[in-house]
Amino acid sequence: MEYKGREVDLSYIKSCSNEELHDLAFLLREKIIETVASTGGHLSSNLGTVELTLGLAKVFDLDKDQVIFDVGHQTYAYKIITGRDLSSLRKKDGVSPFSSTNESKYDIIDNGHSSTSLSYALAIAEMKKAHGDDSFTIAFIGDGSITNGLSFEALNEIGARKDLNLIIVLNDNGMSISKATGSLSKQFLKLRHSRFYLKRVLAFRKLGKIKGFGWLYKFFRHIKNFFKHIIVRDNLFESLNIPYNGPFDGNKIKEVKTALEFAKNVKGPIILHFKTVKGKGYELAQDDEVGHWHGIEPFDIKTGKLIKEFTEDYSYYASRVIYNMLVEDEKTYLICPAMIHGSYLEQCFLDYRERTFDVGIAEEHAIVYGAALSLCHYHPIISIYSTFLQRSYDELIHDLCRNKNGSIVFIDRAGLIGKDGPSHQGIYDVSYLKTIPNTYIFHPYSKEDLDVILARKNEIYESKVNLFVRLPKEKIISDISDYNRINGADTLIISVGNLGVGLFKELNGFDTLLIKQIHPLEEEQLKFILQYKNIILYDPYSTNLGLESSIAHFLALNSYHGNYKAYSLPVCYIESMRIDEQLEKYELDIETMKIKIVNNAD
Amino acid sequence: MEYKGREVDLSYIKSCSNEELHDLAFLLREKIIETVASTGGHLSSNLGTVELTLGLAKVFDLDKDQVIFDVGHQTYAYKIITGRDLSSLRKKDGVSPFSSTNESKYDIIDNGHSSTSLSYALAIAEMKKAHGDDSFTIAFIGDGSITNGLSFEALNEIGARKDLNLIIVLNDNGMSISKATGSLSKQFLKLRHSRFYLKRVLAFRKLGKIKGFGWLYKFFRHIKNFFKHIIVRDNLFESLNIPYNGPFDGNKIKEVKTALEFAKNVKGPIILHFKTVKGKGYELAQDDEVGHWHGIEPFDIKTGKLIKEFTEDYSYYASRVIYNMLVEDEKTYLICPAMIHGSYLEQCFLDYRERTFDVGIAEEHAIVYGAALSLCHYHPIISIYSTFLQRSYDELIHDLCRNKNGSIVFIDRAGLIGKDGPSHQGIYDVSYLKTIPNTYIFHPYSKEDLDVILARKNEIYESKVNLFVRLPKEKIISDISDYNRINGADTLIISVGNLGVGLFKELNGFDTLLIKQIHPLEEEQLKFILQYKNIILYDPYSTNLGLESSIAHFLALNSYHGNYKAYSLPVCYIESMRIDEQLEKYELDIETMKIKIVNNAD
Repeated sequence: MEYKGREVDLSYIKSCSNEELHDLAFLLREKIIETVASTGGHLSSNLGTVELTLGLAKVFDLDKDQVIFDVGHQTYAYKIITGRDLSSLRKKDGVSPFSSTNESKYDIIDNGHSSTSLSYALAIAEMKKAHGDDSFTIAFIGDGSITNGLSFEALNEIGARKDLNLIIVLNDNGMSISKATGSLSKQFLKLRHSRFYLKRVLAFRKLGKIKGFGWLYKFFRHIKNFFKHIIVRDNLFESLNIPYNGPFDGNKIKEVKTALEFAKNVKGPIILHFKTVKGKGYELAQDDEVGHWHGIEPFDIKTGKLIKEFTEDYSYYASRVIYNMLVEDEKTYLICPAMIHGSYLEQCFLDYRERTFDVGIAEEHAIVYGAALSLCHYHPIISIYSTFLQRSYDELIHDLCRNKNGSIVFIDRAGLIGKDGPSHQGIYDVSYLKTIPNTYIFHPYSKEDLDVILARKNEIYESKVNLFVRLPKEKIISDISDYNRINGADTLIISVGNLGVGLFKELNGFDTLLIKQIHPLEEEQLKFILQYKNIILYDPYSTNLGLESSIAHFLALNSYHGNYKAYSLPVCYIESMRIDEQLEKYELDIETMKIKIVNNAD
Repeated sequence: MEYKGREVDLSYIKSCSNEELHDLAFLLREKIIETVASTGGHLSSNLGTVELTLGLAKVFDLDKDQVIFDVGHQTYAYKIITGRDLSSLRKKDGVSPFSSTNESKYDIIDNGHSSTSLSYALAIAEMKKAHGDDSFTIAFIGDGSITNGLSFEALNEIGARKDLNLIIVLNDNGMSISKATGSLSKQFLKLRHSRFYLKRVLAFRKLGKIKGFGWLYKFFRHIKNFFKHIIVRDNLFESLNIPYNGPFDGNKIKEVKTALEFAKNVKGPIILHFKTVKGKGYELAQDDEVGHWHGIEPFDIKTGKLIKEFTEDYSYYASRVIYNMLVEDEKTYLICPAMIHGSYLEQCFLDYRERTFDVGIAEEHAIVYGAALSLCHYHPIISIYSTFLQRSYDELIHDLCRNKNGSIVFIDRAGLIGKDGPSHQGIYDVSYLKTIPNTYIFHPYSKEDLDVILARKNEIYESKVNLFVRLPKEKIISDISDYNRINGADTLIISVGNLGVGLFKELNGFDTLLIKQIHPLEEEQLKFILQYKNIILYDPYSTNLGLESSIAHFLALNSYHGNYKAYSLPVCYIESMRIDEQLEKYELDIETMKIKIVNNAD
């Protein structure tokens, strides 16, 4: 396989002085700001981790030692120093926004979702140990990711292991994505202010190295541990038997180096806690408290203004609907796992503190929490990205949808999402939600379709339905036209959403059906389609196991004897590029569809 | 809705003396042993928790305070005292093996899967607080369940809350299901031996109650916390800011009462750690170290012998195949989350300690761990129950199946599983695995079909396939007959597994096709079915979104103009009863199917 990155000789970094690394950090930041301003991407996390990245390259041998970045959204500096051309970031055939094994041998895994790095690192470190490889494995994880349950499952295992060359670099910018939540984040906050400990440990370590003082070192080690209890207090890692050290200043090259070198000499797993400043080097991002600069579209570096004008999209309009539901019904509660800014929910959280819950990156807990509210006859609204809803599939089956009291789930970023790549596409939700009892899936077109939810909210909760509302990454308009043309043509075109309407408008001489309740199919009302000679389905928002297979299933069981052609996405992973490019690649753009349908050609 | 349980007046328990409760505990144990010996069910966990259950009924007002049992498999004593007739346990229309809101107002949730209780309890306690209800919410959770990531997500939130009347009862029998794994279980072990603390706390508490000594109490509270650090050491709960107390002897009524009363008077969330003896009162279960008595089929009380003779089933034979894979290929690693005994993998773990991993109840971690091994070019085998695989859906998409190196996953308890009820049916796996790229699903029939996997293991890993092998809860036989009869009949019957072959044997004059690779369909080889006038699908192992919809999809896209009839399970929750009763209920038993097909009647 050809790597997109150049072969690189990392010894140039190893030979750098602290001062040179400091300068290099400056240059890397410039490049990152310049790139993200032009391509969009993750800004704050990448600016915060430059020194840590350089420190790793300086202290470790990245040709042998392996760094596993959690999520992979903080790897821009790493990508640059390992020879990748960042200017193609998030572009078609360009550099991936996360870690990518295709792209470089320096990327160990493919990722994009949070909290997997510790499990990977543990497994890799164990395999190394079992096969006599003494190189290091480093998990690089943020203070948000570490609160997810999956991280805990791995930490629990790591704490029971000895002698692994496994280092956990905790990159704590105190922000997670926006606001830090939960007890652990409070713990981090406390630890951030306990600098005393670091100095003691380092001074004490020196003692052990002086010849003849070994006995004293050993003797005092007990006392050290005693003081540690008093100073560092309980923390999660120590309680799980993983030695904890820190906090260190993760933006000071010298301190980063010292800490990493210290960890290199410790037997067994160890966790290093680094405080970093999110957005460091770009003032606007540094002052950001809501997560605006976490993931950002192209912007003007000077003013910080987004280059593309704001267009009202489905997510934005849904946030207005949710707000009004909070206003109108005091039994309404909103739950959102860490995506408040992304889903425009700030105002809801600001004005309704008592009835809004940000549970952090804890999707499973979010769903059970919603299920509990529903059980107690409150009216839960859960707002979550399509791709993150996946992590709570089991809780959807056995908690939210099994309970008999109803809920409304807004699935943000449903359908193709463009540049964030394979891990973030929202194209699977229909196919997996269908497999769960008591689910209703709604794919709106127009503001009026979302208004219906507000108008009928009581009815929805009373009917004890679990309603999943898809919010594609598209402009929303006001439109009350009827796109169902049933005029006795030979061919019926069935579709959904903006792209469906877009296609309908391009075609003449066909009957058309715009489906909004995509699951379950309203079979009685659909019976009429069996008369058509040809049925064409166009669903560019899901894999072929979404609406395509539902319609197929309906047709097959109803002895449909015409011809069914379907155009939707294959069950596959879709790389980073613009949504329009993705549509073109899979021949699902309106232009291509029009040609296919008019010429009746594949 | 009518409750199956009687209305009960729990004041009879509140009026019991310690001695009477002790006697009651004895009677409850007798009833539990007698019932499980006759119906099968969870034995060990229920015997261990009798005193805790009585303690809760004694100290709290169960008509207001709510107990949420995690999993719900330890509720038999609770079910009896709240008026349910345990003799119908796990039977059709009988008492559920887990908590069931249908069954009794004293059951707060419906469950069966682990680690949801803390999220439920938190939400319910918060809603109570917000609405001025000062009753208690009690989460009752085992030392196994608490290690799952979902529990941690909830603990992290709970630690950040104040003033909730939320009590966590940690029922620690040191066994989880079989062996306890991970760092947390070591921590529990350590805590189990630190009895000193308990006495101090209780003595100290008395001090605070003596009039005039309040100041002394306050003064010493600091010192108490100081000592607590030294004595109790760090523990997970304290580190998350949840006050920890214990360990208490959970099998001594008096101590249970004292501890619960203590917790009742504490402001804010608190965790009580109880040591209990799994299987207490039934010697064989008490001495069990592998989990044989965790969930058990009907047995003879005197000898402990199972009443039904052992029949070699798919799981058992698969465990032999897995063993041989470990023997033949030293790149093979086996991962199993807490189901070693259930899946007959003891011998694998005993003979290949270095290449077998029991990660506890941590399904997400298990899948990422497997993905990591696969990435490193080892040969991971993951053995997991169908119903638990659900919890790692996101990791299946973004880790195991996205990575390009192959794995073999044995899905135990696939299909209907009978008496364990709605939460444990393995009927969804095909439908959700289909939605994931790079998955191959195999439904074997006969020992020879499983032997193929052993014979072709290298080929499987080399072809970088993720192979999911379903293991239904059925007898496996040796059979190399060809069940594909392609003789030009009008009607083709397509089916899978034992039941499929069973049906074929009952029918004459029909062509038959036994499908083993159920996903993806081998479309080229399937083209011939388009010629049939009638196609009938019989798949009693999955919902209609499994093979039924795949065949329908294939037919619809290939302009099939015959008639397709399909018989599989609806997308629904299936209650506890024997598998044959479940088949009858859904009209999928062979007898009914035969009549339907022969008479061409629904």
